[in-house]
Amino acid sequence: MIKITLKGGAVREYESPVTAADVAKDLGAGLFKAACSARVDGEHKDLRTLLDRDCTLEILTFEDKDGCWTFNHTASHILAQAVMRLFPQAKFAIGPAIDNGFYYDFDVETPFTAEDLEKIEGEMAAIIKEGLPLERFELDAAAALELMKDQPYKQELIREHADKGEKITFYRQGDFTDLCAGPHLLSTAPVKAVKLTSCTGAYWRGSEKNKMLSRIYGIAFPKRSELDAYLERQAEALRRDHNKLGRELEYFTTVDVIGQGLPVLLPKGARVIQILQRWIEDTEQKRGYLLTKTPLMAKRELYKISGHWDHYLDGMFILGDPHDETKECFALRPMTCPFQYQVFLNRQRSYRDLPMRLGETSTLFRNEDSGEMHGLIRVRQFTISEGHLILRPEQLEEEFRGCFELANYCLETLGLKEDCSFRFSQWDPANPNNKYEGTPEQWEHAQGVMKTILDDLGINYEIGIDEAAFYGPKLDIQIKNVFGKEDTLITIQIDMLLAEKFGMEYVDVDGTKKRPYIIHRTSLGCYERTLALLIEKYAGALPTWMAPVQVKLLPIADRHLDYLYQIQKKLEDAGIRCEVDARSEKIGYKIRQAQLEKVPYMLVAGDKDIESSTISVRSRKDGDRGAMSVDEFLAGIREEIDSRAR
Amino acid sequence: MIKITLKGGAVREYESPVTAADVAKDLGAGLFKAACSARVDGEHKDLRTLLDRDCTLEILTFEDKDGCWTFNHTASHILAQAVMRLFPQAKFAIGPAIDNGFYYDFDVETPFTAEDLEKIEGEMAAIIKEGLPLERFELDAAAALELMKDQPYKQELIREHADKGEKITFYRQGDFTDLCAGPHLLSTAPVKAVKLTSCTGAYWRGSEKNKMLSRIYGIAFPKRSELDAYLERQAEALRRDHNKLGRELEYFTTVDVIGQGLPVLLPKGARVIQILQRWIEDTEQKRGYLLTKTPLMAKRELYKISGHWDHYLDGMFILGDPHDETKECFALRPMTCPFQYQVFLNRQRSYRDLPMRLGETSTLFRNEDSGEMHGLIRVRQFTISEGHLILRPEQLEEEFRGCFELANYCLETLGLKEDCSFRFSQWDPANPNNKYEGTPEQWEHAQGVMKTILDDLGINYEIGIDEAAFYGPKLDIQIKNVFGKEDTLITIQIDMLLAEKFGMEYVDVDGTKKRPYIIHRTSLGCYERTLALLIEKYAGALPTWMAPVQVKLLPIADRHLDYLYQIQKKLEDAGIRCEVDARSEKIGYKIRQAQLEKVPYMLVAGDKDIESSTISVRSRKDGDRGAMSVDEFLAGIREEIDSRAR
Repeated sequence: MIKITLKGGAVREYESPVTAADVAKDLGAGLFKAACSARVDGEHKDLRTLLDRDCTLEILTFEDKDGCWTFNHTASHILAQAVMRLFPQAKFAIGPAIDNGFYYDFDVETPFTAEDLEKIEGEMAAIIKEGLPLERFELDAAAALELMKDQPYKQELIREHADKGEKITFYRQGDFTDLCAGPHLLSTAPVKAVKLTSCTGAYWRGSEKNKMLSRIYGIAFPKRSELDAYLERQAEALRRDHNKLGRELEYFTTVDVIGQGLPVLLPKGARVIQILQRWIEDTEQKRGYLLTKTPLMAKRELYKISGHWDHYLDGMFILGDPHDETKECFALRPMTCPFQYQVFLNRQRSYRDLPMRLGETSTLFRNEDSGEMHGLIRVRQFTISEGHLILRPEQLEEEFRGCFELANYCLETLGLKEDCSFRFSQWDPANPNNKYEGTPEQWEHAQGVMKTILDDLGINYEIGIDEAAFYGPKLDIQIKNVFGKEDTLITIQIDMLLAEKFGMEYVDVDGTKKRPYIIHRTSLGCYERTLALLIEKYAGALPTWMAPVQVKLLPIADRHLDYLYQIQKKLEDAGIRCEVDARSEKIGYKIRQAQLEKVPYMLVAGDKDIESSTISVRSRKDGDRGAMSVDEFLAGIREEIDSRAR
Repeated sequence: MIKITLKGGAVREYESPVTAADVAKDLGAGLFKAACSARVDGEHKDLRTLLDRDCTLEILTFEDKDGCWTFNHTASHILAQAVMRLFPQAKFAIGPAIDNGFYYDFDVETPFTAEDLEKIEGEMAAIIKEGLPLERFELDAAAALELMKDQPYKQELIREHADKGEKITFYRQGDFTDLCAGPHLLSTAPVKAVKLTSCTGAYWRGSEKNKMLSRIYGIAFPKRSELDAYLERQAEALRRDHNKLGRELEYFTTVDVIGQGLPVLLPKGARVIQILQRWIEDTEQKRGYLLTKTPLMAKRELYKISGHWDHYLDGMFILGDPHDETKECFALRPMTCPFQYQVFLNRQRSYRDLPMRLGETSTLFRNEDSGEMHGLIRVRQFTISEGHLILRPEQLEEEFRGCFELANYCLETLGLKEDCSFRFSQWDPANPNNKYEGTPEQWEHAQGVMKTILDDLGINYEIGIDEAAFYGPKLDIQIKNVFGKEDTLITIQIDMLLAEKFGMEYVDVDGTKKRPYIIHRTSLGCYERTLALLIEKYAGALPTWMAPVQVKLLPIADRHLDYLYQIQKKLEDAGIRCEVDARSEKIGYKIRQAQLEKVPYMLVAGDKDIESSTISVRSRKDGDRGAMSVDEFLAGIREEIDSRAR
């Protein structure tokens, strides 16, 4: 008797071995139809997997991350099959599933054209209609090499697998067979809707020393309507994309001779970051943070103490030769911690000084690959609301809670909270020596303490293995950009290791010297990234309190200009950021322009307004709000700004 | 007949040649007694100079910079003579006058001790008493070498002078003769008061490849009372020295493992800079400046366009090998100009966009020698209120005036204006090719325009030759620190060259494309340096509006704490920065502590205060101000802060 425990706890019993597909069929025709792959005893497997002993089983559909991955992987095989039929001379490299779709790399004489992609799409539709079953089989190395004798890239891969003593697995669908570990769908039929999105060059194995191949990207869905909805979301994302909209609205630009990942914040972008920065600094001051301003670079010796030299050298910008110990060598800082600790170390500290909450608007530098750069989100220089809390161990939970509440307040105020999720980033016990400081016992202790705190706070988190800082575990607040790409926005980290390296200690109530614990944390994270997310979230129409220009004053004719200049003066004295559009253009044109610039309010003035000492107010959201006195308008916008309304 | 035109225009006529000393004697015994040297036809000369044709003459005393220099130079010879008498084996290197005194470098077996210095001072007093006349004479190289046959350093110098075809000049005073170009006093007698201040090691010719010599520093005055006054001023300067006081009051610190010239701003220092920075940013915003935030580094290519690569490479921190053109190479920015220009270049500009006033709180990096570093005044990384105005040529004077007014407003508000002087920094036409961009005609034009503007503004300036930026002339606002050392605090520069290099242009009213002019300027200059000057100016007692802690709340006993916490909350809600001293110490001790920390106000509370709902106010300046309500105190301090009272 084989006992199969399903997700949710129900148990199915079978007299003899069955496949995961069989169980799915037993559970219902709908589930079977939607099934992509399975999780057996926690492992991601093929639906073909024979269940021959007691196990847990979860049937995965397109809605599950791994199911979706299987679906896309089969779609990549269908793409390869279509290319084989239409371009018989093509040599096949690799074709994995990726976030949001799949790709396949081909070695062809000439790159694919747009017409080629259309034809391939047509052939893929035919293959799908054929409903070809996929069949898995294994060969020994010799037979595998014989089967792929015309495919040099596959042969290279087969030899590597053989060298490692691995099995050589294939999947066959009709006239096409591919070297592949799977899992895969049972047939090509469920891949109802496919779109090939682009074709680019890509080096074999990513190395520029190898041949340039042609990579076709695609997306696939179980239903045409899902593809259409996805394309619609993509179009909307493109409209909101900060890397396009942020440039059009003149928030930022990039310049070739400055370099990639080094954006220039134009006056609008710089103003928003100034507003955010002051708000965060004031918020932290109210919460008992002490402001610091520490240098952006230091000698190699500082990073040797902190461990950055051993664990982070590749990510740092070095001034001088890092390996020539006879000469002074500086490095730009990738983190603020070893600098801010010096504030604590400035004199002897007692328990009365703790918790010491240090905050800094801190610019950091990370030497990342040019290829990784993206607008304001992935950059080489950025500014964050960095901070370190130096604590008596018994203050850890309360202070961690304070950091978490502060982060929540910031996200809530900006309207970004709903887009966030939590990741408990842990070390990788399998890979401790290269990347992490400390002993397994120290890591178990720190992660255990952090787990208790997170559970006490009722935080619903995912676990990220090998995502910790080199000195301790982290709570990362993750956020997705408009294309669904996830990044860390805020982080709160527990560090029980670095205080010892820096010789940090305090005199406790009983007069003995103790080691403090440290929390590394940000209130908001990177200002550049936050600006990017805000532009995307609000499609450029930032809430009034942070809008770089809050009011645009529009005269109907030139003779109304002086009236508006007086109003401008009054508004500016009240701290409102406003601009007069003094061009001799038609009022309709000027309103459209202000609307395109996403300015929250337009104040129009003509003869009537001057007569009645009013202004005609337009909001970018609701259009015409009618005439009112300047004081009335001012009271309204003041309230909106002060409450940081969204 | 020889006509000698004196300062002030009076003319003296002599039948036959006379010395400058003779004329001084004719002008009066007092002047003759005070005379140190002379300016003849604008050149600094010895009093022994024979006037044998018509000339202008100014007799220089200790009060004149050059006269003082001569006085100190003779003092250095007296020092050398005393050393010769006491340490006959000593070899003599060089002994110039410097700002505030003189030094002489000696090669001796063992460094001088404090007792040695005392003995030398005594011997100097004897030499002065001897009233030895100084005598000038010239020798050819062979005779000079023979005379100095026991002095290897002098011989090295003689050979160099001979190689250049220069005359070898000596001064003799009694038993001591030194190789020297002069000028010198007529006798040792006027050097009435001397003090040797220190003895340090110094390499021959400043190069660590050479032998380490012993350098004795000294100061000298015509009267004992002047020396005493000077020493008193020095003691006061030491009390105010930001490099000492700023550390004691915990404004900043430095850390060996971070590096020299990279100060860590502790919470108090960081707070003052935050306050100054916000004030400047807001002031600039009110004056029509657009805020920018540009990257702190760029690729080599940007600096090649701007000219920094050719003219400023040694002053820059380079990331990578500057000479390997096959690899990407970044450099930290030493100035903001080439970055901020990108904001202008972001799209086509018309005359309507001008003047474009761009402001940025900008961090800069200068790779200066470790030896140059001094507290917060000479640093390798600093933050300034940088800005560039891009202008139609006809807007130059008005905008220059605006920059000058802004600088004056800032200096006036901080109370630093009275310590400032102006320098019109020009290029050096004799040294144009290495250091400066542009042609002599372009420099003459730019400097001519600037002179007109400065004269129109009625600015009383000195001229600094070879002090210009490589792209144009500057008005430098100079300030002296507490030791009398002068530095530039604010600069306003005219640049007619860089716009072309960057291809900057605007469409003028007539539709043609034109080159803008550029003003480079700062509102306040370097924040770190400003903080240092403020600490010295106010001896640490910063005006209330910028004081990091404005109010200290002091309970007489622990039972008064809660009352003060309530008041603290009220004050903080009103934006006042305050701290409660909750330690169980005597009230007298806590008041002394707050006074030492230079906190503007101390609010003391005891039983009586709680009964009558008052607080007892003490000011750091006037002491006890009596009991008052919190509202009354708040109104007073609010007014003091808002008016930025000093």
